[in-house]
Amino acid sequence: MSNPLVIDAVPGTSYADITREFDAPVADLFRAHADPELYKQWIGPGEEHTEITHWDFRSGGGYRFVQRDADGEYAFRGVFHTVRENELIIQTFEFEGWPDEVSIDTIRFEELPGGRSRLVDHSVFPSVEVLENMQAEGMERGMREGYEKLDRMLAGKS
Amino acid sequence: MSNPLVIDAVPGTSYADITREFDAPVADLFRAHADPELYKQWIGPGEEHTEITHWDFRSGGGYRFVQRDADGEYAFRGVFHTVRENELIIQTFEFEGWPDEVSIDTIRFEELPGGRSRLVDHSVFPSVEVLENMQAEGMERGMREGYEKLDRMLAGKS
Repeated sequence: MSNPLVIDAVPGTSYADITREFDAPVADLFRAHADPELYKQWIGPGEEHTEITHWDFRSGGGYRFVQRDADGEYAFRGVFHTVRENELIIQTFEFEGWPDEVSIDTIRFEELPGGRSRLVDHSVFPSVEVLENMQAEGMERGMREGYEKLDRMLAGKS
Repeated sequence: MSNPLVIDAVPGTSYADITREFDAPVADLFRAHADPELYKQWIGPGEEHTEITHWDFRSGGGYRFVQRDADGEYAFRGVFHTVRENELIIQTFEFEGWPDEVSIDTIRFEELPGGRSRLVDHSVFPSVEVLENMQAEGMERGMREGYEKLDRMLAGKS
């Protein structure tokens, strides 16, 4: 039923290529990344509550958000190097709990036939070790659960 | 006489570690990266003229500069993810002639005895191929010549 999440990380390299299709037009998929009121509804695993504390979605802008669950509080921040509507976001990403370990994501948005779309994220980490730590800490689960929430949100809107 | 430039890039990885010492205090070395009037005097190879077209040196800020020589014009831009005075700059970097291929530099500034300092730059590229292209296009020469100009500038100031 749901679209598969494909994470292609070649062992020994410090980057991962993430591919995910969505049953929604590319403009809706992009808007779910651009609008903080939508973004906070799906980003991250499980049922955390996400609070956006800074949002300036443009080339040269930036963001910060805080997620809270029963175990505590997790803050994330970054800058938007490039924003091109319905096409491309290049942004940095830092979990403040691991300060100064900053990754950079090049996220491409592609239109597919039948009102569908594809997200392709080239995610580059500062080292092999940081990528392996992220994987050990549940990167895949976080992305999969987040995109499943995004599926449900997009279905409710279409 | 001059301090060596050490570029440590393990073949098959997409990052390079650059180390360079300077005969100047860490505060002077950092200021040469922070102040656009100083930065434009040393960044880049040879005798290009550098024009800073945007400069907002702070965490969440950004920059853009244009270099001109007899062959043409080369523009570069990025965002500052983190700026910590006399200690750390994390910034993105894009040559606009190769659009959307964005690298990220984590530049640490270290104090050494005798009023000297060390710069350690962990430079992460989007892929092995982009790093190899940058190396083929004279990355090392550009850095070496730039830092030699910086040596002369710092000597004139001390």
